[in-house]
Amino acid sequence: MNLSEFDLIESYFKRDTTVQNSGVALGIGDDCALLDIPEGYQLAVSTDSLVCGVHFFEDVEPYRLGYKALAVNLSDLAAMGALPKWVSLAITLPNGAMVNNNQNWLAEFTRGFFALADKFGVLLVGGDTTKGPLSITLSVKGIVPRGLALQRNKANEGDMICVSNHIGNGALGLAVKSKAVTVTHPQYFVDALELTEPRVDLGILLRGLASSCIDISDGLTQDLTHILKASNCCAKITIESLPFSEMMQDEIKSAKLDNDAAVQYALTGGDDYELLFTVSESNLIVLEQILAQQTELMPSISVIGSITSAQPELISFFKDKQAVTYATGGWDHFKQE
Amino acid sequence: MNLSEFDLIESYFKRDTTVQNSGVALGIGDDCALLDIPEGYQLAVSTDSLVCGVHFFEDVEPYRLGYKALAVNLSDLAAMGALPKWVSLAITLPNGAMVNNNQNWLAEFTRGFFALADKFGVLLVGGDTTKGPLSITLSVKGIVPRGLALQRNKANEGDMICVSNHIGNGALGLAVKSKAVTVTHPQYFVDALELTEPRVDLGILLRGLASSCIDISDGLTQDLTHILKASNCCAKITIESLPFSEMMQDEIKSAKLDNDAAVQYALTGGDDYELLFTVSESNLIVLEQILAQQTELMPSISVIGSITSAQPELISFFKDKQAVTYATGGWDHFKQE
Repeated sequence: MNLSEFDLIESYFKRDTTVQNSGVALGIGDDCALLDIPEGYQLAVSTDSLVCGVHFFEDVEPYRLGYKALAVNLSDLAAMGALPKWVSLAITLPNGAMVNNNQNWLAEFTRGFFALADKFGVLLVGGDTTKGPLSITLSVKGIVPRGLALQRNKANEGDMICVSNHIGNGALGLAVKSKAVTVTHPQYFVDALELTEPRVDLGILLRGLASSCIDISDGLTQDLTHILKASNCCAKITIESLPFSEMMQDEIKSAKLDNDAAVQYALTGGDDYELLFTVSESNLIVLEQILAQQTELMPSISVIGSITSAQPELISFFKDKQAVTYATGGWDHFKQE
Repeated sequence: MNLSEFDLIESYFKRDTTVQNSGVALGIGDDCALLDIPEGYQLAVSTDSLVCGVHFFEDVEPYRLGYKALAVNLSDLAAMGALPKWVSLAITLPNGAMVNNNQNWLAEFTRGFFALADKFGVLLVGGDTTKGPLSITLSVKGIVPRGLALQRNKANEGDMICVSNHIGNGALGLAVKSKAVTVTHPQYFVDALELTEPRVDLGILLRGLASSCIDISDGLTQDLTHILKASNCCAKITIESLPFSEMMQDEIKSAKLDNDAAVQYALTGGDDYELLFTVSESNLIVLEQILAQQTELMPSISVIGSITSAQPELISFFKDKQAVTYATGGWDHFKQE
């Protein structure tokens, strides 16, 4: 069977978007989609590309690729405190073999994509299918009450620095997939890498409470640096406060993983897609009270340090109250060869 | 010099977006851009990818690539009657050679991109730079008064079918670039292909006048078919009414180009990015009166046929009042090998 571009869209991408309160006045099938933004809200938009061989392995399960492509984009909306609403998907597919002879690939890709989209009520409103080297670009759109979006530039001296859930799992998952390390629970870390949970509900909860927020895509230190530079301040990080998963702790206990390596994954590995945010001490108390009521819906949060005024270093690390140094930096597409 | 991803964004993509009435509450530099949609307006969004070797030649002048990538996306907004406002740009760049050793490429690409963006007051509000095979995905956003967007599904029996300016130039330009033909004025047709003029002003003028509208990207017959299927009607096209440019007519006169070949370029070639629209006879008179006052700002329009009720053929062609047949169809990424 040889499907045309229009058949592909009809078969795999076009779904009913006449959902109540969807805001979709016109969905897939015209030159543009038409969207209604409720009064008093701003539109939050973010665009991210995933390129084969750069952001994912060629043999990635298509279900997981479809899922993760959307997850990393929803994570950007979460970091702004925006409610995700719509997404456009541009997909470039390499050859007839993958698409026409193995439609299973596209069926699985869209199954993963829509599994996450449905979870958050996100509607696919447009896109483009082209032929070429495999890559995926998503443009997600969400809404946030005017003035309540979480930005990077409002961190204040004295604020606590927090992260959601655990960090380092994604980077260790990548190391496992790259066969750079051998661990006891490989699938757990690969799942953490590939089936990322965007922290949408937490982001919305943080509106009006957090002073700044970002999602950890390039590594804790690099993403924290964005907040510090935008807010013109510095930070102290307490190494023993970094929240490792139980599985990560288990790998350390069983000597499959060096503790310093785990710290390095957490600080510079990236691919965690947890929220990194700053919050005043008084708002932190409020936040913890709310979270205590919603333990099933929300990830845990951990205080890992605090915002300081100017220091010699942008980020100072402490371990057992002693100043320590760590290699910082993070993922950069154009510096790493 | 080895520029990082952030340096690239700072050097080439980040510009002041604090323009009055821009609607940009927050531009490049956070997880998302924040945009204000004026009350009473809907958001129109469209996403298109351009892939090297598929949509453009590897040796394309980067200025023209940056220009055209935006032009084809603005053309989608024009076809909806939307006012273009914002754009996100995801660009995947192949290697150090092109980016770091020849920054001129990116400087030229962005010069072309911003030349057109500035012409229409479009602001770049976000995007992504990644490493991989060269491709560009743009997501453009415009606004249109609620209920006034031009759709594909409202053509009525008796409506006139019109196109803007000339058709066939783009396809002949592609044939020239592919060395499939030799003509007297090659640069003229290559310019028509590469320096497409999106019909934004005409699209806005057509609000409330045209009954349906689409832009000609895949070829007149294929794009007209989208209108006919969506509106559940048929069409008669008069071949001698197809508006050829003076240069195209000159190529025919000088026997560089067969008249039938010119017709075929116009019907199935695509890459014209002219507007194809339907309009009632009474609204056509109004439209022609307005256009007569604005000849410098607006393209010419030509009536090339009419909308009919059900016929055996979706599109019937007539030449000198005789029924004729032409190969139809158009560009399809997954059927043409």
